[in-house]
Formats: sequence, C-alpha cells, structure tokens
Amino acid sequence: MTNHRILLRSRPGGIPQPDNFVADSVPIRSPAAEDVLLETIFLSIDPAMRSWMTENPGYQQAVPLGTVMRGGGIARVMESRSEKFQPGELVQARLGWQTHPTLPARYLQKLDLTRGDALAWIGPLGLSGVTAYFGMRDIGAVKPGDRVLVSGAAGGVGQIAAQIARIEACHVTGIAGGPDKCAYLTNELSLDAVIDYKAEPDLSAAIGRSCPDGIDLYFDNVGGPTLDAALLHLRPEARVVLCGRISQVAADPPYGIRNLGNLLTRRARMQGFQVFSYHDRYEEARAWLAARHHENQLRQRLHILEGLHQAPGALGMLFRGENNGKLVIRAGNSDGA
Amino acid sequence: MTNHRILLRSRPGGIPQPDNFVADSVPIRSPAAEDVLLETIFLSIDPAMRSWMTENPGYQQAVPLGTVMRGGGIARVMESRSEKFQPGELVQARLGWQTHPTLPARYLQKLDLTRGDALAWIGPLGLSGVTAYFGMRDIGAVKPGDRVLVSGAAGGVGQIAAQIARIEACHVTGIAGGPDKCAYLTNELSLDAVIDYKAEPDLSAAIGRSCPDGIDLYFDNVGGPTLDAALLHLRPEARVVLCGRISQVAADPPYGIRNLGNLLTRRARMQGFQVFSYHDRYEEARAWLAARHHENQLRQRLHILEGLHQAPGALGMLFRGENNGKLVIRAGNSDGA
Repeated sequence: MTNHRILLRSRPGGIPQPDNFVADSVPIRSPAAEDVLLETIFLSIDPAMRSWMTENPGYQQAVPLGTVMRGGGIARVMESRSEKFQPGELVQARLGWQTHPTLPARYLQKLDLTRGDALAWIGPLGLSGVTAYFGMRDIGAVKPGDRVLVSGAAGGVGQIAAQIARIEACHVTGIAGGPDKCAYLTNELSLDAVIDYKAEPDLSAAIGRSCPDGIDLYFDNVGGPTLDAALLHLRPEARVVLCGRISQVAADPPYGIRNLGNLLTRRARMQGFQVFSYHDRYEEARAWLAARHHENQLRQRLHILEGLHQAPGALGMLFRGENNGKLVIRAGNSDGA
Repeated sequence: MTNHRILLRSRPGGIPQPDNFVADSVPIRSPAAEDVLLETIFLSIDPAMRSWMTENPGYQQAVPLGTVMRGGGIARVMESRSEKFQPGELVQARLGWQTHPTLPARYLQKLDLTRGDALAWIGPLGLSGVTAYFGMRDIGAVKPGDRVLVSGAAGGVGQIAAQIARIEACHVTGIAGGPDKCAYLTNELSLDAVIDYKAEPDLSAAIGRSCPDGIDLYFDNVGGPTLDAALLHLRPEARVVLCGRISQVAADPPYGIRNLGNLLTRRARMQGFQVFSYHDRYEEARAWLAARHHENQLRQRLHILEGLHQAPGALGMLFRGENNGKLVIRAGNSDGA
C-alpha cells in the first residue's frame, strides 16, 4: 500500500501557489512499537498554515523544504501497536498532508464521538472553534449587550466567533465577501447584520449603518483597510481581537493603519493571540463548544474539496476569499460518519 | 485688582499657534459663599490640552471658543469664603489660563506639603506623574526584568514613566531628541540606554542595538514612525502602552502603521488609556510617587516659562519637541516655595 504525500517545495512570496508544493508516493511505513498507522479522512486548511511555510514564522518552526507539509486533521486507525488505540477508531492529530501517516500514539487524540461526529470535530469542535472560543472570550472579553463586529465572518474561525457572540447575547455584525456568504450569515447563522465588503464602496460608512452606536468588540481575521475602518467606530473601552490578517499576506508593503489614534481617545485595547498558547485549556473550550453544538446553537458550513491532490491549490483560496465556509480536504474514501 | 486671562479664540488645524488664543483682563471676581479667590502660581502645559481645543476631543468637552483656556495648575489662596481653605494655603485645581481665578471650593485640592513642595506637585506628583504611574503599572503591567522602551522620554510623562520602570528593576531605554535631553536621561535619570532619534537615520536599527533581545513593554508618547519601529522589536506577550502621539498632531493624513502584524505573531497587546479613567485611584498613585520622590528615586526636570503671556506659544513647543523637561508656566511672582 502507498502513502500519497504533498511536500513543501519552495517558500511562498505572497499567496501560496500550487507550485510551492510537490506530490510524491512512498510505501506505507509499518508501525513500530507504540506507533499507529492511520488513514487520513479530513485535513483542515487554515490561514495560519501559510506562516509555517515561511522562513521566519514567528511562533512555530518553519516546515523544512522537501518534507511533508504540516497540517491537522482527522484520521481512522488502520493498524495500532499501542494498546490505547484500536483499528477503526477516529483520532485527530497533526497528520501532515499525506493519506497514510504512521505516527507515535502519543501524538494522537481520540475523538469523543458523544460530542460530535468527524464533521463536527473538523468543524466547530476543531482548532478553528477553539481559536474562536479563546479569541472571543479570553482576549475579547465578550459580554452580553456588546456590539460585536466580525470580519472574515464566513470563514473557519469567523463563523464560530460570530455565533459565540450571538450566544452571548450580543448584537453581531458580520463582514464577508459576496451575496452567498452574506445570505448564509443572515439566514443560517442568524447574525443581526451583514456587510458585503465587495459591494460597499465605503466600508466605514457601511459599518456605521450596521453599528450606529459603535463597536465594543471587533474580531479581526483580515487586517488592512477593514481593520482601519473598524477602528473609526470603536466605543470607549472597546477590544480589538487580532486573530488573522488574510488581506495582508500578499501586500508588500503592508497596508498602513491610520486610525490607531482611536485606541487612545477611546481607551481601547488591541491584542493579538494564537490558539497554541491555550493548549492547556483546549478541553475547557471543547466542552463549551460541544454543549452549544449539541443544542444546535453552533453550526459551521464546510467547504470540502475532494482528494489530497487539491491541497496545494486550496491554501491560496483562503487568501483570495474563494472558500465558502471552513475549507477542508477530504483525503480518503471514508465519509467519516 | 485684575485677572489676566487667555481665551481660546480659534481651533487649531495642526500644531496650536499663538493666534489660536487671545489675552484679556477683567476685574477679579469677589468670592461668593463657598468660593475661593486664588492667585495662580504654576500652570501645567500638556499635549492632551490640544485635544481640548478641538471640536471633537473624544473624551472631554471641547473648550468653548471665547472662554478661558482649560488647564491645571497650582495656586495660592488669596481670599476664602469656605471654611476648608485659609489664605496662603496652596491648592491644585483646573485653574484655567488666568492669574486670579475665583472657583468653588469643591473644585480645589489642598497640597499635602509633607509629600512635596509646589515644584514637586507640578512635577512628579502632578497629573503627568499619575499618568505615568497608571500607564506603566496598570496598562503596561511592568515587572522586574522587563526590557522597557519609552518614547518622549524627556517629556513630562516620559521622564516619570522611565523612572518607574527603572525603580521596578527593568532595563530601560529612552528615546528623545537631541544630545542635551539624551545626556539628561543618561546622567541624571540613570537610564540604561538612550536613543537620540534626531541623530539616527534608522530608528529600528538603533532600537535593535539598545534592546538586542527585544522589548517587553513600549510606553509610547509619540506615535507614528517611532511606534512602527518599536513594533518590529516586540517580544512575545509584549505590551504597548499608548499614552500620547505628539508626532501625529500635525500629520494629515496620519502616518500609516505597517507593523501591526507583529502584535499577532508576538501575541502582544496595545492599549490606549487616559488618566481621568483612574480618578478614583489618584491617591494610590500619589502615595506611591511621593514615597519614591522622598527617597530621591523620582526626579523631574521642569522647563519653566515665566509669565502667563507665554502660555499661547508654549503648547506648540511640545509638538515641535522644543521643551527641555516638563513644560510649566510660572504665572505669578510667587516662587511657590
């Protein structure tokens, strides 16, 4: 049997391109003691992965050139030499972009299927959900009645962040690109207001119409001019959560933010974070998210691409806004149910 | 007897100019019941005063055109119709730019001369000191061993902020303009390193030399390119305290900050504040500052201009970096001793 892999070939300048990667195939590695042979089901495609492709990722080691691209996902146990795992069980792990990884058992976490199926675990219970949880609650200190603005609201983290704010009894405005994403946010996720940034010549004016009393909490996934526009509408003691900046990955030089003075006049706070800092508290987040998911308060639209061969082109879709929901690769034949 | 006053005549576009003000003279107003007639000794000249001159100051009411310019300072009681104050006592209050204000007793605070004389009360025990205290300790969460960078380090707030960091056993680098200010920071305030931004073609490189391991806490009084350069050197979980942005008052459009992405990769926090939010805790700050002042750990160089007639030109000096220490108007003949 063969393990199909995608290796990192070169480092991207701006938006990752398919030719930054190269595919190969190697024989499956038989598990040694305490190893587990897996069949990959889903791989999560997230903006943070681009930073792993660069020389100086800032917080994680760069993926070495010529090695399997790093990535998290869900897999089924095929063969186990650990007593902790049995064939057929579902696990999550940093699988890498490969169809049949063989990994040490200590790197695997068994899915608790009472909390949700594989689609839930790649969705709201996955790292995107956990990221939204800590960003909205710990960094954003969300509280009932807050006027909340979320950019990238139809994306992997944005969908969950917006729903957390809604669950917390906030007035929630989402920013997304295109009528389809906006209709989803309004009709399926029940946000209070939606801004289609592609249809708005003046984003600040649009924010002003949706949030006439200003913003208590801005959850930012995009950076650049969207962030600058949101700063104009901060209320006193507002919080700005910097979760991502997908608009800036190909910007050279980066967009210059002109409205930081409002942090001063509004006594506001802007804070960046990374979910990995909260590693010791993932269980807290997952318990909260699973309870809301179970009550159907927390949904997530997935954009599923079929086949590992689509992974090299998938990452660029995020930065061009082409994904319609959280972007996922289905690597195997399994439906994960 | 005559009360000499300076009125706000017009609102400034950029840096306040002398012709934004006009002088007049009116008879002293005799105190009514519970009023106190004062003789102004010192008036504090601070960057925040410019925001009071504009239509939309953000957090304080604008000074109405044609009325006495708002400003705080120290005065001596000439005549009192309140049993709480006796002639000859020293008080601090929002006196306004006038030589002989008559104010309700409830607006006055008696100076505790056991803590310091009038020069100490306009200096480290005054609002600049209190601002530095809350900015460095509450917003900046300064702790021993932090690598601290302070811009505007020879200014009213900057001097105290830098000394607080030194007292807290930090490595402190100050940024100031010109050899005289820099020598003062090194020789008199014993900072660990000083950067003369006027002599540095590449401010980021200079910060890198002074803070080779990066910055845990940046206390920003100037904004603009200095802030942008400091962002390049943030350590993980750094704090950026936005206290002022004097470099940007005449910038139209404002400088665009390009390095905010480092807040994300370094999981850093940037927060604006205003001292007035801490009104209920001024006593805490003054007790701390007075104890350090008493131990000679906290000094402040004052730049004293003689005569109220210099006030209209004084404010612009702050934004041109022409003050050599905390800027103060000595309004009366009294030495305040």
